[in-house]
Amino acid sequence: MKRPNFYAAGGLDRVGPLRKDPDWLKTRLAAETSRFVPIWRAQHLVRDSGAGPEPILLDLGAATPFILGGVEPLLLGLDGEIAHFALDLSAEDAPLEQLGLAGAVPEEGPRFQDLRAFGPLLPQRTGSLLAYARGLAHWHSRHRFCGVCGSPTIGAEAGHVRICISPECKTHHFPRTDPAVIMLVTDGDRMLLGRQAVWMKGMYSTLAGFVEPGESLEEAVAREVKEEAGIEVEDAVYHSSQPWPFPSSIMLGFYATAKSRDIRLNDKELEDARWFSRDWVRAHVDDEFFRLPRKDSISRRLIEDWLGQG
Amino acid sequence: MKRPNFYAAGGLDRVGPLRKDPDWLKTRLAAETSRFVPIWRAQHLVRDSGAGPEPILLDLGAATPFILGGVEPLLLGLDGEIAHFALDLSAEDAPLEQLGLAGAVPEEGPRFQDLRAFGPLLPQRTGSLLAYARGLAHWHSRHRFCGVCGSPTIGAEAGHVRICISPECKTHHFPRTDPAVIMLVTDGDRMLLGRQAVWMKGMYSTLAGFVEPGESLEEAVAREVKEEAGIEVEDAVYHSSQPWPFPSSIMLGFYATAKSRDIRLNDKELEDARWFSRDWVRAHVDDEFFRLPRKDSISRRLIEDWLGQG
Repeated sequence: MKRPNFYAAGGLDRVGPLRKDPDWLKTRLAAETSRFVPIWRAQHLVRDSGAGPEPILLDLGAATPFILGGVEPLLLGLDGEIAHFALDLSAEDAPLEQLGLAGAVPEEGPRFQDLRAFGPLLPQRTGSLLAYARGLAHWHSRHRFCGVCGSPTIGAEAGHVRICISPECKTHHFPRTDPAVIMLVTDGDRMLLGRQAVWMKGMYSTLAGFVEPGESLEEAVAREVKEEAGIEVEDAVYHSSQPWPFPSSIMLGFYATAKSRDIRLNDKELEDARWFSRDWVRAHVDDEFFRLPRKDSISRRLIEDWLGQG
Repeated sequence: MKRPNFYAAGGLDRVGPLRKDPDWLKTRLAAETSRFVPIWRAQHLVRDSGAGPEPILLDLGAATPFILGGVEPLLLGLDGEIAHFALDLSAEDAPLEQLGLAGAVPEEGPRFQDLRAFGPLLPQRTGSLLAYARGLAHWHSRHRFCGVCGSPTIGAEAGHVRICISPECKTHHFPRTDPAVIMLVTDGDRMLLGRQAVWMKGMYSTLAGFVEPGESLEEAVAREVKEEAGIEVEDAVYHSSQPWPFPSSIMLGFYATAKSRDIRLNDKELEDARWFSRDWVRAHVDDEFFRLPRKDSISRRLIEDWLGQG
């Protein structure tokens, strides 16, 4: 089996059947061993250790005041016997102070920080736990009201469903993720990479885009490459997948072979797209003029695996 | 490239960049050649032809009264030069009468009918067009209000975004689909199939389930097989994908190899799960005691491709 992508392979037991058991849930919520991943406005609580960033999980004592105050604990799963929950503190104005963690030097001491800033420095399982917590919390924040009738929704099943409170509607909403295809298009010894205007200078990456209703992944690959770069592809071969909760995607990685060569930026999503040879990229990667995408991304993985083949 | 699954490969040009151009859209909405796929409460308009079911598309004259009455045309794409739109008539009580199509023998004449009842009898491109129309219309029906703030949303970009009308919120909601994994688990010459209590007597199918936030497709495969049948798998090899708008999924098909043999129905989703040998299935398929899933499903495809290998 292939090495899993970063943010995958968290190794938690998601205990799907137990999530529906209120007695089981009560026991875990009262267990001294339980741990809570705090999220505040899409950021995680982290401090520096000698070995790099260290996420801070809350114990029962630290979590209880927030739960009593109405924050719904979202069950992530069991790591061995230890239940892990996400706790979204976004309604608080100063959660660091409430936790007794506010310090004088926020950039060194405990702070809330975007996972994208320190994710690649974490062990795989920790990165996955934090990504999952963020993704589930984001989903709740986007489904506080029912899309069908506009009434409020309430969470149930340990945070794995939200139910519309209107007796005429009662629609159940489930946590889903947005499928997006991401593909390395190749032409023999060359690969097609593009860049958006807002990206860091010199950075090029694989093309990508969201899957639309009524199309297969393979059709989405062909459509996006045509829209973004004007290139026709003749196949789409699946590589691997990656949860990408920035904010709510699952990335579905493919290789595709070009049938045409002339680049046209049809939908203006990219500022530039080019063919790069293996040798050129190997010689220039991460020099002052050329950058590959971040190391925790499936884009980087697709590119490195392909570079390694030639 | 593999033969596409049913409901995929519609061949429409989705004209992503043009959807945002109001002038282009106005021209297509006024074009005599444009065609409209009517949807009514998740059903399609269909009549019998000598050769099987024939979907009825509306021309501009038939569609205009509904559009003037407030039904938003949802652009599907171009088939050659002909623009196709979906038109959700669900607010009407008697759309057949309004269309002058109400007849004495509804089961033979024009009628609204569930695509699942006649989909497999359609040509591939027609099946795909209807599935896409249904999926997009369903998405709109589930996003009439903003999940973030509860305000109404309005459609824009030819039906490919809904925007919250609250000036403080203005969240954009995009049409997405729910990723679900579906997997044929094998153990040498045997495959694992299960059945739900509500299914037709004797029918067995592959296991399946929705992908959750924070997991890869490969993790979802392993988790669902464990939850539903208690079997551990040691790999997950992607086969193909299929849009499945019943109501809003994209099915992601995998093969997986069993590491364990003893079946346990952990989450009670299945009424039964069993190991079936290739030879037994070949001998009994669609006899009076045993049925494989419907011919338009990726489940059937996974099973038939595997049967063909041994």
